[in-house]
Amino acid sequence: MSADPAVGVVPLALKGAMDQVAGEIDRAFDRLLTPPGDSRARLFEAMRHAAIGGGKRLRPLLVRASADLFHVDRMPALRVGLAIEAIHVYSLVHDDLPCMDDDDLRRGRPTVHKAFDEATAVLAGDSLHALAFELLADPETHPDPFVRCELLVELARASGPSGMAGGQMMDLVAEDADFDIAAVTRLQQLKTGALIGFCLEAGAILGHVPAEGRRAIRAYSRDIGLAFQIADDLLDVEGTAEATGKAVGKDAAAGKATFVSLLGVERARRQAEILVDQAIGHLAAYGAEATLFRSIARYVVDRDR
Amino acid sequence: MSADPAVGVVPLALKGAMDQVAGEIDRAFDRLLTPPGDSRARLFEAMRHAAIGGGKRLRPLLVRASADLFHVDRMPALRVGLAIEAIHVYSLVHDDLPCMDDDDLRRGRPTVHKAFDEATAVLAGDSLHALAFELLADPETHPDPFVRCELLVELARASGPSGMAGGQMMDLVAEDADFDIAAVTRLQQLKTGALIGFCLEAGAILGHVPAEGRRAIRAYSRDIGLAFQIADDLLDVEGTAEATGKAVGKDAAAGKATFVSLLGVERARRQAEILVDQAIGHLAAYGAEATLFRSIARYVVDRDR
Repeated sequence: MSADPAVGVVPLALKGAMDQVAGEIDRAFDRLLTPPGDSRARLFEAMRHAAIGGGKRLRPLLVRASADLFHVDRMPALRVGLAIEAIHVYSLVHDDLPCMDDDDLRRGRPTVHKAFDEATAVLAGDSLHALAFELLADPETHPDPFVRCELLVELARASGPSGMAGGQMMDLVAEDADFDIAAVTRLQQLKTGALIGFCLEAGAILGHVPAEGRRAIRAYSRDIGLAFQIADDLLDVEGTAEATGKAVGKDAAAGKATFVSLLGVERARRQAEILVDQAIGHLAAYGAEATLFRSIARYVVDRDR
Repeated sequence: MSADPAVGVVPLALKGAMDQVAGEIDRAFDRLLTPPGDSRARLFEAMRHAAIGGGKRLRPLLVRASADLFHVDRMPALRVGLAIEAIHVYSLVHDDLPCMDDDDLRRGRPTVHKAFDEATAVLAGDSLHALAFELLADPETHPDPFVRCELLVELARASGPSGMAGGQMMDLVAEDADFDIAAVTRLQQLKTGALIGFCLEAGAILGHVPAEGRRAIRAYSRDIGLAFQIADDLLDVEGTAEATGKAVGKDAAAGKATFVSLLGVERARRQAEILVDQAIGHLAAYGAEATLFRSIARYVVDRDR
């Protein structure tokens, strides 16, 4: 994505954490989604197709980094990461439908409605959506029900009409609207920023951290959320289907306003890098404890998928 | 639906309760779904179209009846009923999509994808889905977070792949399968029975009623759930689009096994009436306190929509 020869070289500690989290998420979905011995088996196969064996698992990684920062156990963090990933995956399944983005390829494999059919894709998305809330409400996630309810309210807000789904609606409208940089920023804050924000908030909720202790992590999450989206827009212009595992060049074809169409490639990349530096700056006071956050922030803009 | 001249005459107490609950649900959705002043307005309009001004509101009525039986406040019962109705409405919006049942008419009005478009219908369904869980997790629903978490787990189970969504998947498969009465019963227990069961369980959860105190209401809910579905199958054969507000004759056209196709009209109706008597019998010990439940059970099979 850039001319820097270090690109693609993910720091070892980050690589280790990413691989570990990805393995844990895959194994957890595998256990949860055992197909039943009746005609619902096809539904479970579709959920497995969507949820297992793919993706960067960036969101569960952020939950774990946040839990580590606030000295919280990793088991609850994994359960919360799993719930968020279930939400993220359901949104991809619905977003790929012919009536939405109409994508055939996701994570290098056929999308759910291609591998199965559209009706099954709708139901698999709905099922993963319900599963996310079932996971969070279960006492296994955290013994304190106040913590579970706070997680639930925040996840519902981050994913519903005041968050992700609202941003997706703005995205639909964007094709016919004349969005400026403020409107695109707002759209992306809802569409991807709200859920990324919840990932980082989750560690604080699990650790009973009061609001003033969450300020730095919230500022970090706002900046990397935007940087993440700018990088996505750049990948849509400069990436390849082979590397990203999905179709590219779609925003320009749809005539959609993006950070890249509004700022140009160079300014967009510079903006992403400023945001990354800024994000890292917010966590300066944490010193070595924030090392993983620094690597994640750099990775967010340097990734090739 | 029957030759009985009393048909359509709903007992006054039931009529009063139904009208009151329907008004409360409409007003609550109206307050919750105020369109924002940005490009998400279309999403909120679609949610309003789906959620306000229609439907029997049978599920919120069942929650209230259950809350009354267990001497629980009506405010929490209304919030739980609202959450269940949000789930029910989202499932109708997705079920009506062209890739699912492909229905143009619902509650006598154009379905959401007809009045708006398919992508907006997918997102409106997803948004109502998230809203249901946000409502339940909010402290306003009940001060005790253990109660909120129990409600959340049970609603997620009743609506996800082990409940409603699982039943919808079986229903998709049913068109090509050779379902017998046991398979159709299982399908309907998941597709509609699980959520109806949760409505009646909700009063017991709100009232901290232990498992042994829930036996009668659970038996009642199993019986009226099945009776409700048999009545639905009969309406699909004998009802009119004018009265039901939706297309009829769809099951036969799709060659789907239903209670009516497997038992015939007469036996199916007799079976529904046996189930209603049985349901009422389970609550005999409650005497006059179960009056509303008796009216609801009769209404479930005598309704014309």
